[in-house]
Amino acid sequence: MLLREIEHFLEEDTGQGDYEPIVPHTDSKAEITAKEEGVLAGLEEVKEILDYLSVQYSSGFEDGARIRSGDTILTVRGAGAEILRAERLVLNFMGRMSGIATLTDTLVNEARKGNRRIKVAGTRKTTPGFRKYEKKAIRIGGGDPHRFGLYDAVIIKDNHIKLMGLENAITKAKESTSFTKKIEVEVESIAEALRAVELKVDIIMLDNMTAAEVKDCVRLLSDKGLRDGLILEASGGIDMKNIKEFASTDVDVVSVGMLTHSAKWLGFSMNVVE
Amino acid sequence: MLLREIEHFLEEDTGQGDYEPIVPHTDSKAEITAKEEGVLAGLEEVKEILDYLSVQYSSGFEDGARIRSGDTILTVRGAGAEILRAERLVLNFMGRMSGIATLTDTLVNEARKGNRRIKVAGTRKTTPGFRKYEKKAIRIGGGDPHRFGLYDAVIIKDNHIKLMGLENAITKAKESTSFTKKIEVEVESIAEALRAVELKVDIIMLDNMTAAEVKDCVRLLSDKGLRDGLILEASGGIDMKNIKEFASTDVDVVSVGMLTHSAKWLGFSMNVVE
Amino acid sequence: MLLREIEHFLEEDTGQGDYEPIVPHTDSKAEITAKEEGVLAGLEEVKEILDYLSVQYSSGFEDGARIRSGDTILTVRGAGAEILRAERLVLNFMGRMSGIATLTDTLVNEARKGNRRIKVAGTRKTTPGFRKYEKKAIRIGGGDPHRFGLYDAVIIKDNHIKLMGLENAITKAKESTSFTKKIEVEVESIAEALRAVELKVDIIMLDNMTAAEVKDCVRLLSDKGLRDGLILEASGGIDMKNIKEFASTDVDVVSVGMLTHSAKWLGFSMNVVE
Amino acid sequence: MLLREIEHFLEEDTGQGDYEPIVPHTDSKAEITAKEEGVLAGLEEVKEILDYLSVQYSSGFEDGARIRSGDTILTVRGAGAEILRAERLVLNFMGRMSGIATLTDTLVNEARKGNRRIKVAGTRKTTPGFRKYEKKAIRIGGGDPHRFGLYDAVIIKDNHIKLMGLENAITKAKESTSFTKKIEVEVESIAEALRAVELKVDIIMLDNMTAAEVKDCVRLLSDKGLRDGLILEASGGIDMKNIKEFASTDVDVVSVGMLTHSAKWLGFSMNVVE
Amino acid sequence: MLLREIEHFLEEDTGQGDYEPIVPHTDSKAEITAKEEGVLAGLEEVKEILDYLSVQYSSGFEDGARIRSGDTILTVRGAGAEILRAERLVLNFMGRMSGIATLTDTLVNEARKGNRRIKVAGTRKTTPGFRKYEKKAIRIGGGDPHRFGLYDAVIIKDNHIKLMGLENAITKAKESTSFTKKIEVEVESIAEALRAVELKVDIIMLDNMTAAEVKDCVRLLSDKGLRDGLILEASGGIDMKNIKEFASTDVDVVSVGMLTHSAKWLGFSMNVVE
Amino acid sequence: MLLREIEHFLEEDTGQGDYEPIVPHTDSKAEITAKEEGVLAGLEEVKEILDYLSVQYSSGFEDGARIRSGDTILTVRGAGAEILRAERLVLNFMGRMSGIATLTDTLVNEARKGNRRIKVAGTRKTTPGFRKYEKKAIRIGGGDPHRFGLYDAVIIKDNHIKLMGLENAITKAKESTSFTKKIEVEVESIAEALRAVELKVDIIMLDNMTAAEVKDCVRLLSDKGLRDGLILEASGGIDMKNIKEFASTDVDVVSVGMLTHSAKWLGFSMNVVE
Repeated sequence: MLLREIEHFLEEDTGQGDYEPIVPHTDSKAEITAKEEGVLAGLEEVKEILDYLSVQYSSGFEDGARIRSGDTILTVRGAGAEILRAERLVLNFMGRMSGIATLTDTLVNEARKGNRRIKVAGTRKTTPGFRKYEKKAIRIGGGDPHRFGLYDAVIIKDNHIKLMGLENAITKAKESTSFTKKIEVEVESIAEALRAVELKVDIIMLDNMTAAEVKDCVRLLSDKGLRDGLILEASGGIDMKNIKEFASTDVDVVSVGMLTHSAKWLGFSMNVVE
Repeated sequence: MLLREIEHFLEEDTGQGDYEPIVPHTDSKAEITAKEEGVLAGLEEVKEILDYLSVQYSSGFEDGARIRSGDTILTVRGAGAEILRAERLVLNFMGRMSGIATLTDTLVNEARKGNRRIKVAGTRKTTPGFRKYEKKAIRIGGGDPHRFGLYDAVIIKDNHIKLMGLENAITKAKESTSFTKKIEVEVESIAEALRAVELKVDIIMLDNMTAAEVKDCVRLLSDKGLRDGLILEASGGIDMKNIKEFASTDVDVVSVGMLTHSAKWLGFSMNVVE
Repeated sequence: MLLREIEHFLEEDTGQGDYEPIVPHTDSKAEITAKEEGVLAGLEEVKEILDYLSVQYSSGFEDGARIRSGDTILTVRGAGAEILRAERLVLNFMGRMSGIATLTDTLVNEARKGNRRIKVAGTRKTTPGFRKYEKKAIRIGGGDPHRFGLYDAVIIKDNHIKLMGLENAITKAKESTSFTKKIEVEVESIAEALRAVELKVDIIMLDNMTAAEVKDCVRLLSDKGLRDGLILEASGGIDMKNIKEFASTDVDVVSVGMLTHSAKWLGFSMNVVE
Repeated sequence: MLLREIEHFLEEDTGQGDYEPIVPHTDSKAEITAKEEGVLAGLEEVKEILDYLSVQYSSGFEDGARIRSGDTILTVRGAGAEILRAERLVLNFMGRMSGIATLTDTLVNEARKGNRRIKVAGTRKTTPGFRKYEKKAIRIGGGDPHRFGLYDAVIIKDNHIKLMGLENAITKAKESTSFTKKIEVEVESIAEALRAVELKVDIIMLDNMTAAEVKDCVRLLSDKGLRDGLILEASGGIDMKNIKEFASTDVDVVSVGMLTHSAKWLGFSMNVVE
Repeated sequence: MLLREIEHFLEEDTGQGDYEPIVPHTDSKAEITAKEEGVLAGLEEVKEILDYLSVQYSSGFEDGARIRSGDTILTVRGAGAEILRAERLVLNFMGRMSGIATLTDTLVNEARKGNRRIKVAGTRKTTPGFRKYEKKAIRIGGGDPHRFGLYDAVIIKDNHIKLMGLENAITKAKESTSFTKKIEVEVESIAEALRAVELKVDIIMLDNMTAAEVKDCVRLLSDKGLRDGLILEASGGIDMKNIKEFASTDVDVVSVGMLTHSAKWLGFSMNVVE
Repeated sequence: MLLREIEHFLEEDTGQGDYEPIVPHTDSKAEITAKEEGVLAGLEEVKEILDYLSVQYSSGFEDGARIRSGDTILTVRGAGAEILRAERLVLNFMGRMSGIATLTDTLVNEARKGNRRIKVAGTRKTTPGFRKYEKKAIRIGGGDPHRFGLYDAVIIKDNHIKLMGLENAITKAKESTSFTKKIEVEVESIAEALRAVELKVDIIMLDNMTAAEVKDCVRLLSDKGLRDGLILEASGGIDMKNIKEFASTDVDVVSVGMLTHSAKWLGFSMNVVE
C-alpha cells in the first residue's frame, strides 16, 4: 500500500479534522481474534496500516493461513489512542479480504473435485476503489484474479460484437493492442467459438452456456485439433452447486462473479487486554 | 461525487495509460436492465459518472424505487467507446448499492412488524474507501446510516472502558467533544446501562445482549423514569431471524452489521441495442 | 497531520521545483521564541512538520500553556538547510493558532465572569483550507469548536426557514439525519424559539438578539418547564464588550465569529544560535 | 482556481460523505450583501466556486471596487441546495480577502502621504495553504505581494548570515540562483547595508531599524552614488502609526506583516430572497 | 487525459499562485505551425488542454498524419491570456510526442525493408511520469508500445534469473500470474532460449545477441518445430543502422530503447495572428 | 522529492494493483554501472527512491561528477523484490538527468572557449511533469536553469508584443509584477532592443538573430552606455556548432532549447551480483 492510500483509508474513518481520541496515548496491548473459521487475508495490509501508526505487532499467521474461531491472529502494542484509531479500518480490511479468500478457497476445493487442474477466477465485479484488495484476496484464497481492468488484457464481449461484429472486433483488437497482451473473446455458442478460434485469439470465454454445452464445445475443439495453446474459460451463473460440473467439462478456467459480489465478511474483533 | 472521485474510480478500471477502446466513438445506444427484484440505489452516482463521460441518459426510476427483474433502469446514448468505458463501473455502483438498499429494506420491513417506529441502523463495517456510498445505500433502503466515522459522534466502547473506566471515559468525552455532538455509550449489562444513564449521555447501546435482556433493560429504565430524552440502541448478532424480536423490545434503534458486511449485490446488466 | 498535508503546506513555501537552499546541510541549532504573552497553540503541528524534515526538537511547553514574551518555546537541532526550510511554515502555524487560542482564552475569561459554566464557541467563519487548525486552536484556548462543517450536525438557519418554513425544515431534517446527530435551529424571536422547542430539537440558537432579549427568552423557557435537556446558544454581534452580559443571561453557549475572523497572530521568531 | 482546489475547499465544509442538504433543489435566488465599507476582493474566486456548483450570478462590482455597507455585491440564482452549499465558503473567501485588501488600501493611502511612489508589500506571514489568495488580496488592495515563497527570489536573512557570513551567503546565492531571479539581503545596520551593496545585490532590506536610521542609510547610499539601480526596502514593526514616516525616508518599499497577520475580515452576508 | 492530469501539467508552468497573465482576456487568434517534417502526435492531448482552458480550435490534421515544415497544424481562438497560458504546454506535448512518433516511423520503415511483418516495439526507458504519452506516441508512429509496466505482462530478465534460476523463475511466474497475462523470458544464448521454450512461455526475448546469432536461433527453433505459437523478440543495441538486418532474421518483434531515450523533439511554434 | 512524487513515479511502473514481484524478499546486492562517459545527475533522486523502498546503498560519486564507462555508480543492498521494483525507475532518472547534464556540460565547455564568463541557460521546452528534474540536471551540468515557469520571472515575448505592443506590455508587466521579480523582453532587432532598454527592463533577449547581429547589438548598447546593470541573453538556433561564436559576442547568457529537447540519455544498467 502506498502511504497515500493508507491516509485515504484512515481519513475516511477519522474525518478531516475534528477527531480527537478520548483514550490517552499511554501504552496498551490488544488482540485481534477470529470469530469464524476461514482463510486469512488482509494481514499484510493490516501490518502496513499499523506501521504507519507506529503500532507494533506480532502474529503467528500469514496471509493464506487457515484460521479457526478463537485464534488470536495478531497481538498489537502501542499508544492506546493509536490502537483504537486503527481498530475499525484494520478489522474491515481483514473482514472483507478474508471473506473473499474463504469463499474462493471453498469454491476452488469444490471445483477441484471435478478437475484437479482447474483455475477458479474472479471478475471485475468489485467494489469501486477496492478492486486491488479484492483481487488479491482471490489469489490468497487460491483463485486467479483474472485481468485487473480494461487495460491489461483485451476481452471482446457481447457488446463489442454487437457494435462491431466478431471479426472486425478481433482485427481491431489485434491492431490496437501490444503483442505483449492476450486477447480473449466471449462467445455464446459453439459456432461463435469456432469462428473465434479460427481468428486466432488467446482465450475463449464460453459465456452463459450450460455445463453440457461447455462440455460439447470443449470436446469439439479437441476433436478438431484446435485445443492446443488455447485457453478455455467458462463463465456465467457458476456457483457452489454447479462449479464441480463446470470444472469437469475440461475447460481451463471457470470465472465466478460471486467471489466478490456475494462474499460475506469473515468476523474478527479487537480486544484491549491491558 | 467530486470529479476527483469519479476519475479515481474510472482509473481503477481503465488503468493509468495504455487503455485504448477497440470500439469506435460512433453513436450508440444501450440499456441497463435489472436481473433481480429489489430496491434501486446508486442511480445518482451512475448519472454523475455518465455526465463526466458525456454520455446521455434517461430513466423512469429514482433511487429508492422498487424494481423488478427485467426492468430497464436506464437508457444511455453516446459514443460507443465511452459507453463501454462506463459499463463496469456503473454496474458495480448500482449492484453494490442496490444490494445494500435491498437488504436494508427487507430488514426494515421485518423489524417494523415488531415495532412500527424502530430505526434500523448500519455500522462502520464498510468496505474501505466506499463507506460514503454504502451508508447512503442504507438510507435509500430506509435505514439510518448511523455515525459516519469516529469524528461525527462519540461512542464509548468496551475497549475505551477497559482502558479508562466508564466514568472517566464519559467525563473525558464530555470535555473533549463539542456540545454539538452526541455521546453514546456501549454497555453489556443492565447495571452498566444504569450507570451510563446517570452520567447523562445521549444514547445507550445495549451490546450483545439477548432480546429478553434488552427488553428487561428498556422496561427498567422506563420504570425508573429514565427513558425520557434517551435513545436506546440494540446491537450485536441481529439478523433476519431475530430483528423483529429485538425491535419489539421497544428500543429506538437496532443496528445491524450485516447491512454492509453480508449484503449480496443486486444483478444488473448493460446491453447495447444499436 | 497527514503526510500529504505536511507536503502540501511545505510546497506552498518551497515551490514545486526550483528551490535550492543556500545554507548547507551542516548541523545547526535554533530557538523559537515568543515575542508576546498569550496561550500557545500549534506546537503539536510544528513537531510533526519538524519530524517530517528530520529536525530534532525539545520543548518545555505544551499546547495550551500560557507563555510570556521572551520564552524559548522550542529548541531545534538539525541540518541548517532543513531548519530554514521549516522556519516560516512553523512560525505561521504557531502564530495563527496561538493568536486564536489567546483571543479565545481572553473571551472565555471575560464570559466566565458572567456565568461560570458558559461555553464560548467558534463558528465556520474560518480561513478556507485551514479550519481544522483554527477549530483546534479554539479548543486549546478553552473554547468549544462548534460543529466542524455542514455534515456533523444540522443547523436550520434563516435561509433554510425562508426557503422551507420552520416546521417543514425541522421535519425534513429529522427524516434525513441520523439519530446520532443533533439538530439545531436558529431563531430570531422568542415566538420562533417557542415554536422550535415544541418541534423538539436539540439546540436553539438565539441569533442577533440583544442580551436583554436573550435573557427574557431563557427565563420564559425555564418558566414553561421547557429548558430541561435543551441547549441554548446566543450568537450574533458578541464581542469583548458584551460577552459577559450575554453569558449572564444563563444560556449554555455563546458563539463568537471573531475568534477566527478577527484574531491577530501571536508573534514568534526563530533565531539560529549555532 | 483549479477544480482540485475548489473541491478541496468545498469538501472542508461538506465533509467526505454524509452531508445531505435539507433544502430542495428547486430554483432560488439570494443576495450577498456587504455589512461594512471597504475594498472588495475574492469576487473572482467566488464566481469560480459558483460556476463549479452550476449556480448563476450577476454583479455590478469587480475586485478592487470600493464598497459600502448595504451594497448588494452579488445576486445568485440556482438550486436552493447548491446555493446553501456554497454560502459559507463563498462568504469566507470574500470576508478574508476583502479584509486584507481593505487593510492594504488603508496602509497604502497612509504611506502615500509620506511618499507618492512608495510600494507597500506583504510578507510570507500567511495562513498555511491560503497564501495564494492572501497575496492576491494584497495586490487587489494596491499593495505588492512580495516574493511568493522561498523559490521565486532569494532573500538572505539574519539566520543565513549567522550560519554562513554575509559574503559567503551572497556568493553562494549567486552561484546557485538563476540570473532570472533577484537577490535581496536583509541588513540590520548601515555598515552591513554598505557591505551588501558592494557585493552587488538587487534589493537591500533594512530590517528592524527606526525610520530615522532608515533615512540616514538611504541618504548615505545616495551620497555615495550607490542608490542607482538598487531597490531599498524597510521592514520590521511598521504599522498604521509609523508607515507614513517610514515611507518618507525615500525607500522604495515598506513591507508590512500585519497586512496578513492582523487583518480583520470584512463582513458579508447571504440572504435568500425567493 | 484526466482533469487531474491537465491541472498537474498546467500548474508546472503557471505555478501555484502568483502568476497573473499580462495579456488581457480579449479575443485573439493564433496558429501552431510545424517547423520540421515528421509524424504528428500529441494533437489529441493538445485539444483536451485547450478544452480545459475554453480555447477553441480547428485542425485539418489527425494524430499520425505526415506533416511538413510550414504546415499550420492548429488554429486556436479564445482569450489572449488563456492562449498564452496554453502555449508552452501545448508545444511541449506536440514536440515530445511527435519527435517519438517520427523516429518510430523512420525505424519502422527501415525495419520493414528487411521484414514486412516486423513489429518495432518500445521499452520502459521513458521519462518518469510521462510514459503514457511516450508509449502512445510509439503507437501513433506505427510501433508497438510493448508492456506498459511491471504489471501488465511478466518479463523474466537476467536479474531474475541470477536471483532465482531460469526454471524456478518461470515456475514462480506461472504460479503468481493470472492466466490472462503473457510471460516473456529474456535470454542471452541459444541454449537458454531452448530451455525457456521447453518451459512453455509466450515470448522469448533474444537479448544483446548479434543479428547473426538471432538468425541462427530463429532457424533452430523453426527446425525443431518450436516456433509455432511462440513470439520471438530481438532486443539490445538495435538502431537505424542495423534494424533492417535484425528485422530480416525473421523474429516477430524488435524492441528499441532509442525510440524514447534518444528521440529529438519535432519543432513547432505558436504565433498570434490577431 | 516529496513522498507523493516518489509514489506517483513508482506507481507508473508497478501499476495500481496487480503487480506481485516474482523475486523473493531475500537479501540481495546489485550494482548500477555506467555504460558511457558523461556527467552524473539524478543520484540524489535515486537515493530518495531507494530510501522509500528501504533499499540501502553506497556510492563513491556525487551529482556533477564526471563518470566513465564501467564505473560502478552505486551499490545497493536489500530485498531482491524491492531492488527489482526500483530498477527501471532509478535507471530512468539517472539516464534522463545525466543525459541532460552531460550535454549541458559539453555546450558550456564549448561556449566558454568564446567567453569565459558566459552562462548557458535552458528553456521551458521540457517534458511535461518532469521539468523540475530537467532544470536541475542543467544546473548540475554547469548551466543556468533559467526561469522555472511563467510565474517566477516575466518574459515579454513576440506574442505579447503582437497582442499589446511593446510599451504597453512593459507597462502592464511592471504594474502587475512584484518588485521582487525581473522583467525580460524578447526582441528581434536592434531597434527593438533599444526601445526596450529605454523602458528599463532587467534582461533583454536577442531572439533569432545571427551571432553577427547580436555582436552589433551588444556593441551599440555598450557604446551608448546602456550596458550597465543590464543582462543580455542570446537565444534561437544556438547549437554545438555556433555556441562559441554566440558566446564571443559578449552577451551574458546564451539559452539553448536542445539541452532538454534533444539530449540523449546516458546509459546505465543494474546488475544483481549476489
